[in-house]
Amino acid sequence: MPVKLTGNACIGQSGGPTVVINQSLVGAIQESAKHPEIQKFLGARHGVRGIMEEDFLDLATIPADRLETLAVTPAAALGSVRLKPGPKECERVFDVFKKHNIRYFFYIGGDDSAKTAHTVNDLAREADYEFRTFHIPKTIDNNLMENDHTPGFGSAARFVANAVRGDDLDNRSLPGVKVDIIMGRDAGWLTAASILARRRDGDSPHLVYLPEAPIAMDQFTKDVAQAFERYGRCVVAVSEGIRDPAGKLWAERLAEESDADLVTDAFDHFQLSGTGALADYLTTRIKAVLAHVPDLRVRGDTFGYLQRSFPGFHSAVDAAEARMVGRDAVRYACVGDVDGSVAIKREDARAYKAYTEVVELEAVAGKNREVPSEYVNAEGNNVLDTFKDYAMPLVGDLPETAVL
Amino acid sequence: MPVKLTGNACIGQSGGPTVVINQSLVGAIQESAKHPEIQKFLGARHGVRGIMEEDFLDLATIPADRLETLAVTPAAALGSVRLKPGPKECERVFDVFKKHNIRYFFYIGGDDSAKTAHTVNDLAREADYEFRTFHIPKTIDNNLMENDHTPGFGSAARFVANAVRGDDLDNRSLPGVKVDIIMGRDAGWLTAASILARRRDGDSPHLVYLPEAPIAMDQFTKDVAQAFERYGRCVVAVSEGIRDPAGKLWAERLAEESDADLVTDAFDHFQLSGTGALADYLTTRIKAVLAHVPDLRVRGDTFGYLQRSFPGFHSAVDAAEARMVGRDAVRYACVGDVDGSVAIKREDARAYKAYTEVVELEAVAGKNREVPSEYVNAEGNNVLDTFKDYAMPLVGDLPETAVL
Repeated sequence: MPVKLTGNACIGQSGGPTVVINQSLVGAIQESAKHPEIQKFLGARHGVRGIMEEDFLDLATIPADRLETLAVTPAAALGSVRLKPGPKECERVFDVFKKHNIRYFFYIGGDDSAKTAHTVNDLAREADYEFRTFHIPKTIDNNLMENDHTPGFGSAARFVANAVRGDDLDNRSLPGVKVDIIMGRDAGWLTAASILARRRDGDSPHLVYLPEAPIAMDQFTKDVAQAFERYGRCVVAVSEGIRDPAGKLWAERLAEESDADLVTDAFDHFQLSGTGALADYLTTRIKAVLAHVPDLRVRGDTFGYLQRSFPGFHSAVDAAEARMVGRDAVRYACVGDVDGSVAIKREDARAYKAYTEVVELEAVAGKNREVPSEYVNAEGNNVLDTFKDYAMPLVGDLPETAVL
Repeated sequence: MPVKLTGNACIGQSGGPTVVINQSLVGAIQESAKHPEIQKFLGARHGVRGIMEEDFLDLATIPADRLETLAVTPAAALGSVRLKPGPKECERVFDVFKKHNIRYFFYIGGDDSAKTAHTVNDLAREADYEFRTFHIPKTIDNNLMENDHTPGFGSAARFVANAVRGDDLDNRSLPGVKVDIIMGRDAGWLTAASILARRRDGDSPHLVYLPEAPIAMDQFTKDVAQAFERYGRCVVAVSEGIRDPAGKLWAERLAEESDADLVTDAFDHFQLSGTGALADYLTTRIKAVLAHVPDLRVRGDTFGYLQRSFPGFHSAVDAAEARMVGRDAVRYACVGDVDGSVAIKREDARAYKAYTEVVELEAVAGKNREVPSEYVNAEGNNVLDTFKDYAMPLVGDLPETAVL
């Protein structure tokens, strides 16, 4: 028989939202209703900040049909936060937990959020406070260790692949060079997903650059010029986290060159999203190299926040799995597991099937899972079609298109 | 009885593509099959350029089921072109028409394309060449005179409204200031459509700037600061065609200030799309004005080419009407109308219904239809909810979302 721990539960959302992050919230709410040992199920507004300010919402009061609408609503319904709690903040969180008899803590987020959960968990252990903590995975970056993939990735990948397919068609209409900047600071999974747009010979992206394959600017412009010569046009997918051979972010280097302010967040991350500077820099360099081509169109788009927030275009598999990880976190806690991170695993079977396991918080916290080099071509400027076997089941079929 | 004119027909696509431009192509192909006086139906690759180079495709050979996939494929399947043909080019076009016994010419495009059709038509008249020319409307900008709205607008507006709704949710999650740059050089229709994202009190966009309401930078940043104070966050929709009180494009002014190259196209249009420079400029100015707010997130996205090319997210009404204008152009030509532009009109009835009429090419060619001032608030920084009555039927219902 599982050891029952009676008390209240608290759930929070953290980091960059996704279009399925509320699926996990709803999965946890629905599952907790089945466990009488969870007395109150409290939602913390804006993650740990809401806990510190005792800004809670009683989630049991939300009607069932409203929960289903909430589940398909992008972005963190409870509010999110980018905060790296220090010892003082963690102390405060812990005091609030004790005050409200919170015995279960679920934190939906990426590797930084797993770190926060890990820290709070350590405090509880030291204080001998009976407590169960689970990190619920979420990130469009797909970069959590121990996971085959992460909730949020499939839907963002679906958006990216579909956007690049549309862009390929647009570029066929009005040929030129097009640079698309795709999210992913430390891992190129989302940028790699752009190749799901390729179906026919000559389809773009013609070049793909990941943070895992550092490249010099001269090589980049040379690649683009070659591809343009070959196809008479060129669509390039570039990760915002692209790095030079010294391992430095291009975005950071160009900001230094232009004397722009370096904006960093609470985790000392340099700001990459919400600016078109990298795309504009690359198009300027490409124009210089292809200056001999008359009337050449060179354009750059930064897909930006739409990748993680566009409603109504999620992956069905991703939505179901995001619900599953929220549900399973509560189940694991209620059958007596004490702490951990819920991880998605893939069955080694012909047809795609996923399940969850509990892994150590430490194995996920603050770590980064890169795209394996086996998916990158020798030149480091493209992703191989074998990646489709991995990613396609997570994304689902894309809308049909035809070319003449 | 209509006067039958026997010969071949030619169709081309021109200007910036849309997600429903191939609906018009398919509508014309399907209708022409019903008229034996149209012998061959030729598609010109890349508009007038394809005509000059005699680069034609026999469109009658495309199987029916492939036509339906083609219809839902974004971007110009025949290829598009940005070319302003001069007297010499028009002469060449005309020679090719005579050589191939082309008696019908259909040109799918915006106001620039109507101008091209008009010029070719004049040549035919002068030469006493029996000939029928129709301009088929297409533009996400919705700026064609004589039209209630244009094919392509409804789908682009649907994308923009849905993107801003997602952005609103993202901004609620992680509050800050967000600037979204939306396409539309000379008219703010598409930017105005961002307000379709608003449903509840406090929903964004909180501010909306159209080319029709010029504004000084100081007033803009003052507006943003005020909105931020009121809502604790702020999402701003800005047209790429925003102008200062002297009528000058902001984008052009800032390019001059930064000594950047001014890129112009064949129509002497300054390049606005395919760059994030305007958004980055605005976020920099906003950061300066709100420098006293600690840890303020200020981000900018430029929606870019996705607005006109994202597959599988079109408006059903827009798709049907794009098919209709293609079909009707062929019908008008075959019942004896000699030339004109097909225009969409709206029935003055309770339920939304549209139909087409033929209007003078001259009335559309090279002209711009602005957003009427009745839709803009007195301060010139927002669009009134009455605009929804106009735009909502063209866009259709958006995916449901909920907030806690």
